[in-house]
Amino acid sequence: MKKIGVFTSGGDAPGMNACIRAIVRTAIYRGLEVYGIRRGYNGMIKGDIYKMESHSVSNIIQKGGTILRSARSTEFMTKEGRRKAYEQLQQHGIDGLVAIGGDGTFTGANIFFEEYGIPTVGAPGTIDNDLFGTDYTIGYDTAVNTSLDAIDKIRDTADSHDRVFFIEVMGRDSGYIAIPCAIGGGAEIVMIPETDTSIEYVVETLRTGWRRSKTSFIVIIAEGGEAGSATEVAAKVQQALPHMDARVTILGHVQRGGSPTAADRMLASQLGIACVEGLLTGRKNVMAGIINAELVYTPFIETITKDKVINPQFIDMVNILSV
Amino acid sequence: MKKIGVFTSGGDAPGMNACIRAIVRTAIYRGLEVYGIRRGYNGMIKGDIYKMESHSVSNIIQKGGTILRSARSTEFMTKEGRRKAYEQLQQHGIDGLVAIGGDGTFTGANIFFEEYGIPTVGAPGTIDNDLFGTDYTIGYDTAVNTSLDAIDKIRDTADSHDRVFFIEVMGRDSGYIAIPCAIGGGAEIVMIPETDTSIEYVVETLRTGWRRSKTSFIVIIAEGGEAGSATEVAAKVQQALPHMDARVTILGHVQRGGSPTAADRMLASQLGIACVEGLLTGRKNVMAGIINAELVYTPFIETITKDKVINPQFIDMVNILSV
Amino acid sequence: MKKIGVFTSGGDAPGMNACIRAIVRTAIYRGLEVYGIRRGYNGMIKGDIYKMESHSVSNIIQKGGTILRSARSTEFMTKEGRRKAYEQLQQHGIDGLVAIGGDGTFTGANIFFEEYGIPTVGAPGTIDNDLFGTDYTIGYDTAVNTSLDAIDKIRDTADSHDRVFFIEVMGRDSGYIAIPCAIGGGAEIVMIPETDTSIEYVVETLRTGWRRSKTSFIVIIAEGGEAGSATEVAAKVQQALPHMDARVTILGHVQRGGSPTAADRMLASQLGIACVEGLLTGRKNVMAGIINAELVYTPFIETITKDKVINPQFIDMVNILSV
Amino acid sequence: MKKIGVFTSGGDAPGMNACIRAIVRTAIYRGLEVYGIRRGYNGMIKGDIYKMESHSVSNIIQKGGTILRSARSTEFMTKEGRRKAYEQLQQHGIDGLVAIGGDGTFTGANIFFEEYGIPTVGAPGTIDNDLFGTDYTIGYDTAVNTSLDAIDKIRDTADSHDRVFFIEVMGRDSGYIAIPCAIGGGAEIVMIPETDTSIEYVVETLRTGWRRSKTSFIVIIAEGGEAGSATEVAAKVQQALPHMDARVTILGHVQRGGSPTAADRMLASQLGIACVEGLLTGRKNVMAGIINAELVYTPFIETITKDKVINPQFIDMVNILSV
Repeated sequence: MKKIGVFTSGGDAPGMNACIRAIVRTAIYRGLEVYGIRRGYNGMIKGDIYKMESHSVSNIIQKGGTILRSARSTEFMTKEGRRKAYEQLQQHGIDGLVAIGGDGTFTGANIFFEEYGIPTVGAPGTIDNDLFGTDYTIGYDTAVNTSLDAIDKIRDTADSHDRVFFIEVMGRDSGYIAIPCAIGGGAEIVMIPETDTSIEYVVETLRTGWRRSKTSFIVIIAEGGEAGSATEVAAKVQQALPHMDARVTILGHVQRGGSPTAADRMLASQLGIACVEGLLTGRKNVMAGIINAELVYTPFIETITKDKVINPQFIDMVNILSV
Repeated sequence: MKKIGVFTSGGDAPGMNACIRAIVRTAIYRGLEVYGIRRGYNGMIKGDIYKMESHSVSNIIQKGGTILRSARSTEFMTKEGRRKAYEQLQQHGIDGLVAIGGDGTFTGANIFFEEYGIPTVGAPGTIDNDLFGTDYTIGYDTAVNTSLDAIDKIRDTADSHDRVFFIEVMGRDSGYIAIPCAIGGGAEIVMIPETDTSIEYVVETLRTGWRRSKTSFIVIIAEGGEAGSATEVAAKVQQALPHMDARVTILGHVQRGGSPTAADRMLASQLGIACVEGLLTGRKNVMAGIINAELVYTPFIETITKDKVINPQFIDMVNILSV
Repeated sequence: MKKIGVFTSGGDAPGMNACIRAIVRTAIYRGLEVYGIRRGYNGMIKGDIYKMESHSVSNIIQKGGTILRSARSTEFMTKEGRRKAYEQLQQHGIDGLVAIGGDGTFTGANIFFEEYGIPTVGAPGTIDNDLFGTDYTIGYDTAVNTSLDAIDKIRDTADSHDRVFFIEVMGRDSGYIAIPCAIGGGAEIVMIPETDTSIEYVVETLRTGWRRSKTSFIVIIAEGGEAGSATEVAAKVQQALPHMDARVTILGHVQRGGSPTAADRMLASQLGIACVEGLLTGRKNVMAGIINAELVYTPFIETITKDKVINPQFIDMVNILSV
Repeated sequence: MKKIGVFTSGGDAPGMNACIRAIVRTAIYRGLEVYGIRRGYNGMIKGDIYKMESHSVSNIIQKGGTILRSARSTEFMTKEGRRKAYEQLQQHGIDGLVAIGGDGTFTGANIFFEEYGIPTVGAPGTIDNDLFGTDYTIGYDTAVNTSLDAIDKIRDTADSHDRVFFIEVMGRDSGYIAIPCAIGGGAEIVMIPETDTSIEYVVETLRTGWRRSKTSFIVIIAEGGEAGSATEVAAKVQQALPHMDARVTILGHVQRGGSPTAADRMLASQLGIACVEGLLTGRKNVMAGIINAELVYTPFIETITKDKVINPQFIDMVNILSV
């Protein structure tokens, strides 16, 4: 292997730049040439590819987003699109790839390898932490801290006004972001897709709280749950509790940005190094991850198909701690 | 004057605690007794009143929200409510009031004085900065910085994805929060209630930008404008520009919380001192404010009825700087 | 067991309040009475002890420091001091203790148990992360992020001025704080007590960097190393490189404060629960910790005497990534 | 005027990038060509000059430091140095300059104009706020908020340990940074170069506080005062109060960095525009500033020689509010 390409794909996540930096510098340290591919598979198809040097990644470790930009590519889902991508890589002499992204990214890489034989090693870059094969994904710790910071601010005003706040956090189909937000934010209730928190439970908990003369409440709602969005949950609860002074806040895209935390910079740096080392030792179609402080490579297919399960004790914790 | 009461009313704002601290300590320094009234006029009516000491306000200067809590009172709008409030003040021997709040607060204080003769001096506590009689209101600088911090995070992801973000900020009927968010956030467009930014203008600006190969845009929208909420504006623009990748974020109640900035702590401290000094020198029904670095007392009636005008140059700045 | 006492001892750490909250609420949830002991062993000796309720720990999860205050006690090192402490606990009917602190705290608890048989379960509360028996200590993640935030700011000015910054971080005798600061801060060199980084190496690395036309550098120095403090290292390097424009910053006590990160709030909450559950299941003289996501109780004596070793790969990472 | 040059000089300050951005975009908006000069007068002498476009300043408004880098130039103090600088400007056809910096910068510009007739308009870029001709300098608000944030963290640990903290902030010869840090940080004592706070006063205030059972104290010390550095003051006070548990923290270069606040971005943007408009309307050797919300141009010579006086009421405020 002499020349590798690196790209980011799917939703961006804080720490992607730290990972790009580690990939570029490790490649150079190990005598490889390294090329940046802009806008994920789209840039691969269009040949939006440039040679990167050590200084190309100077002073980016602390930056949110991705200097390589990201996109979701529909064209790469077609045979024709992948053929074009292959031709571009050929033209640049690229014989290995590092992909930073999530399951869509790895699915694409898998098919691409089967067709053209260019090996890819991946780094898990998504705020949702819902990838099997790593304890944490790059961007997750930052997203949680960003959300928690917002929840702390909202609690200032909740406390001042005797209100019930329904706060929606991201997470796609999982409660990974919601759980530490609820525990760390001192919330009374958490609703995540993995469990079946009913509207009745929410209503009952608020009623009990009022009886014990609690006056302000925070309910954390992960997007994607059965009970609906924060707006919908709030409306349903309001019907049962017409005197409740409720407010809804949807944290939204703020959660994707910001300077990565120390943990995300460390993780991104470790996994960036591991991606390059993986390619050099002949690995392909695997994602680098850290499980119990050990570096682990997991086949793309498992990262996509296997489920990662949230520790159920964390849900009990919310109940105990809001006693 | 021997005993004064202090309360916060209306929407809470960062710096209210710093103001309470300054009021309590100045009162003690000047030999007065000082009483905290909880939950605004509601607490006055119910007699939720307690004696405050110097240590009652220790370690609160950096806290968001208000330790005295706040509420909007419908009962105080009735003659009967105000009579009860008067009786409670009488019972505690309170012969002067300091009110931290906005125009609703001051309107109530005005009527109350006419009926019962208890003088009130007010401090402008609202994130909206829409009160005549002061350059800045307590909480405004913090709210702007909180919003800007969120916008910085959103731009990370906007840049990474070639997107158009429509971001809604608070401000009631004014663009005071939106303007520095737009200039400081490097936004391409700002829409505020004071001007008539048409949907056509937004569409045209985005089209021109794309032609100049700009790929990501930020549009700041103050709540309360004619063109509608951020969600509505985005939908209308999307119709004209179907290929646009648009996202909407409503910053919401996050803007009300957080630790006050240095400027808000300074302003709150200065105005807290000025409220007590004002009462001691016989002022009544006036709001303390700072205009051009000078302390000014403005009659409540003027703070409510007179308009505060945004410097129109600030709107031009957005256009020049996004060239 | 019916009544337990809780105290914080030694240097304070962010997350101690989150831990106190979890201890108090779990105790109440499990039907125990819980007493707060102020200022560590000093308060135990003086009987500065008060009953805590659920609301005693409301709204403290996000606060730095410790509401129970902390102190180092010389009196508790004497037999007489411990006898007084025992009498106070007897008087309050306290038959179990939860101690949040570090090795000094646990050493004291061990002796106290041998003499008076009151069981203690401990939670590791120190920013230094140098306790055996847990992957992370409460406060460590926050301290690292606080330091990194400061280093990011310093790099702004380092880059603007072509300077070499020597930044000293805390850590007592270990490089746990320094390592992620160096990797996450994009530093060129890290000096920690565990390794023997010579002044010659620093000088040579800077010379090589200049030759490759790097113009600004960051050197992270953990306190307690052989080469001396940041001030001493900078002076020695300056002698060898008289043209270097060097600046020294000692981050100092800023690192101990601040609102705890999400990870620290989670860890503190988990360990707080575990301390109470531990006492209830008959454990004594053990510290609750999390190793590889599993709850582990380690005898105090081992937490004090056994060494926790930094992953040596982390040091190599600094070299690779600053290539 | 057709071509202008822009540079930053002296100590860097947050907001310099926002100012560079405003200068470049206003110049382009007004049909001028604009050149960036790197490393202040040094780059002018060496011809380190490049053409800037609108996109050269994309996404820098939120960044600390200066993308043009800064330096203090000894060569420009010589006739020979200035001659070289002139020749470089001639070669690039630059017939107007915008300088962002402090008094050293403006002194140089003044002499340069007398010798070669190239007009300069300046923007006040320094965290110290000690320039006559503007209420605030670019970077001041950010530096104060950064310091205050650090002081808030230190107070967490001060409160937890019953300690006296002596915290040194920047400010060259003025107390501009120290004053809002003391008021906003809830400090008990502030020592600034403008007043004569004796060690006796500090000792007496601490003694009085202890008598009133205050247990933790914060003393803010501006660098450059008669009583000495924070380390020296602490040592002297310790002699008089041997039982005091004192700690010293020197905030240092952290204060220079970080993302600029909203107020600094606004000020920097306004003054950047004003510099270009000033050159276009024939102004020379003046600094643009904002006094009482009005744009004012002040001759360089006055900005250097005239004194800006701190409002003495601010010092009284520290005493009243720590009652």
